[in-house]
Amino acid sequence: MATKNILVVPGDGIGQEVTAVGKKVLDAIATKFGHTFNYDTALIGHVAIEATGNPLPDETLQKMKKSDAVLFGAVGHPKYDNDPTAKVRPEQGLLKMRKELGLYANLRPIKLFDELLGASSIKPEILKGADILFFRELTGDIYFGEKGRKNDGDTAFDIAEYSRFEVERIARKAFEAARTRRKKLCSVDKANVIETSRLWREVVQKIALEYPDVEVEHQFVDATAMLLIKDPRRFDVVVTANLFGDILTDEASQIAGSMGMLASASVGDGTGVYEPIHGSAHDITGKGVANPLASILSAALLLDISFGMQAESAAVIKAVDQVLKAGYRTRDIADAQTPADKILGTDAIGAEVLK
Amino acid sequence: MATKNILVVPGDGIGQEVTAVGKKVLDAIATKFGHTFNYDTALIGHVAIEATGNPLPDETLQKMKKSDAVLFGAVGHPKYDNDPTAKVRPEQGLLKMRKELGLYANLRPIKLFDELLGASSIKPEILKGADILFFRELTGDIYFGEKGRKNDGDTAFDIAEYSRFEVERIARKAFEAARTRRKKLCSVDKANVIETSRLWREVVQKIALEYPDVEVEHQFVDATAMLLIKDPRRFDVVVTANLFGDILTDEASQIAGSMGMLASASVGDGTGVYEPIHGSAHDITGKGVANPLASILSAALLLDISFGMQAESAAVIKAVDQVLKAGYRTRDIADAQTPADKILGTDAIGAEVLK
Ligand SMILES: CC(C)[C@H](C(=O)O)[C@@H](O)C(=O)O
Ligand SMILES: CC(C)[C@H](C(=O)O)[C@@H](O)C(=O)O
Repeated sequence: MATKNILVVPGDGIGQEVTAVGKKVLDAIATKFGHTFNYDTALIGHVAIEATGNPLPDETLQKMKKSDAVLFGAVGHPKYDNDPTAKVRPEQGLLKMRKELGLYANLRPIKLFDELLGASSIKPEILKGADILFFRELTGDIYFGEKGRKNDGDTAFDIAEYSRFEVERIARKAFEAARTRRKKLCSVDKANVIETSRLWREVVQKIALEYPDVEVEHQFVDATAMLLIKDPRRFDVVVTANLFGDILTDEASQIAGSMGMLASASVGDGTGVYEPIHGSAHDITGKGVANPLASILSAALLLDISFGMQAESAAVIKAVDQVLKAGYRTRDIADAQTPADKILGTDAIGAEVLK
Repeated sequence: MATKNILVVPGDGIGQEVTAVGKKVLDAIATKFGHTFNYDTALIGHVAIEATGNPLPDETLQKMKKSDAVLFGAVGHPKYDNDPTAKVRPEQGLLKMRKELGLYANLRPIKLFDELLGASSIKPEILKGADILFFRELTGDIYFGEKGRKNDGDTAFDIAEYSRFEVERIARKAFEAARTRRKKLCSVDKANVIETSRLWREVVQKIALEYPDVEVEHQFVDATAMLLIKDPRRFDVVVTANLFGDILTDEASQIAGSMGMLASASVGDGTGVYEPIHGSAHDITGKGVANPLASILSAALLLDISFGMQAESAAVIKAVDQVLKAGYRTRDIADAQTPADKILGTDAIGAEVLK
């Protein structure tokens, strides 16, 4: 019977719709297990720019720091995407949040619910049993280095940077996780070309000596992009830099049937942030068709990692599993065999999970 | 009846085995069509380091510049991969060659031979008819910017850079190609985070005005990594920066059934270089099992692009198609239905193509 303060930060696009469902599930858990969850909300991204001119208002940041966990939606808006010269962008809010909260480790579990074997574009016999845990570094790399223009704006540059310390702490987290799983770790880099990758590989090789029970392999990012879909079951824990992690985990969403199924946890020095890996998806915003399961599964990660509530977390995952077993689907995870009356909208499938 | 000088540069690992077969196919074409092809060879990569200390000896570079086209193998060696501190590396030879020959456009056609529908990990109904032409920029980006260490080696950095001019010339090549195809171009970047990507998008938007008949879309690299396997048929021509192109085309190899099927052409200011996209694959080197079809298809691209020999190029592709139709496979493209006696080694499948 715990009391916790949860900050809900829906952000942009379908972020609003899906976090609303995620929050309802947290509510149901509180009732069922006798906890008290207090909620507050705050703005980030495009909606924050519209309201305050700032993609991460100071008020939001302060609330985040004070809360026990953040349930996050998504940020982004097509308006900025099509204007490469925009100076203020929703994504700046997200990146600043990651940096300010010290969220250096982004965990992205990729696991296929058996019922969704048919929903993926990958063959079921390749997928069955795949279970990968990604550790994406989240506060370094080309995301946070200096960037700008020179030669009268005719040349653009971005600096990618990693320090030994930054690689060490994420590597340790990944090795620790591998120990609790199948004891295999794949570190992904581009050490044949990139200097930050060579430092990355050096450090992972060194940390590996502390974990002799974990089997380590190093793969290049290009080969990994291929192997992930050719043979996803060969991977257990994967650890990689910020940019490579961004690309590979989106790709890996096909292993879980749909991006609409993938949750993530960003953790580090302080408050943890839990968010779907899908984006703001303005093309389907407001239509009530977005898949809220990634937000619900993010809530499950929140319960597990930030609150240490394993039973509560398992109850959420079991509820999702039962809804899928009962044949309910959102559009993105339906396959040709799904009868039309089992295809539900955002709130309706959320209601099924609540039952 | 033309006379041409072809330089064969096998490089490392299976590069030796597969270019030997590619060369035999070029020989057969010369005989059949009454051309005279003169050959020379040169060293690059690990074998060049062993022989001369230099991954791209000056002699090799001079021979390349003087030849009409280069049939290339692969470079790389596990020895350097596992030693992040090595100062001289095989890949430096490859990168220097690209830069010195001004090979700024790397064309990677991804097309599935119908017979290989079963060999991919992706479902046949998702794949059937997929036909993508990648334009990967090849002489800029994080590959060629300054890189190094600071803080006593504790921090590594890499600078990614693009100038307007560099983006313009590759974009134009991609738009021109789209015109001869389905008139769709997808430009891939990470403009929501990276400054070089914002310049990239700005320039592509501008060049697009010159090609009003081509339908343009801009996608983020993470979304593209997902869409490529979710719905490969939505793509026609894809143009992207060096690093993103490296990752996405390796991933896309699954669309063609296997990396062992994918050829590439690197073109620009001078001599064109034709090479499989697979690497040196030391794990299977010397075993006689490498798939030479990518090298053979690279020879087809060489005939078409550098020599303007369309009929000759088509004859090579048709021969490959017939060998596949006859049921012959190398290990990498065999599926569960392939009878054992139809699985051939490198030379044997090459001999079938020659017939
Ligand atoms: C929105 C964007 C800046 C972000 C990223 O690239 O990190 C997103 O793609 C993600 O994966 O969380
Ligand atoms: C070997 C390596 C340097 C090279 C690259 O990254 O360009 C390879 O992966 C390729 O795609 O040609």
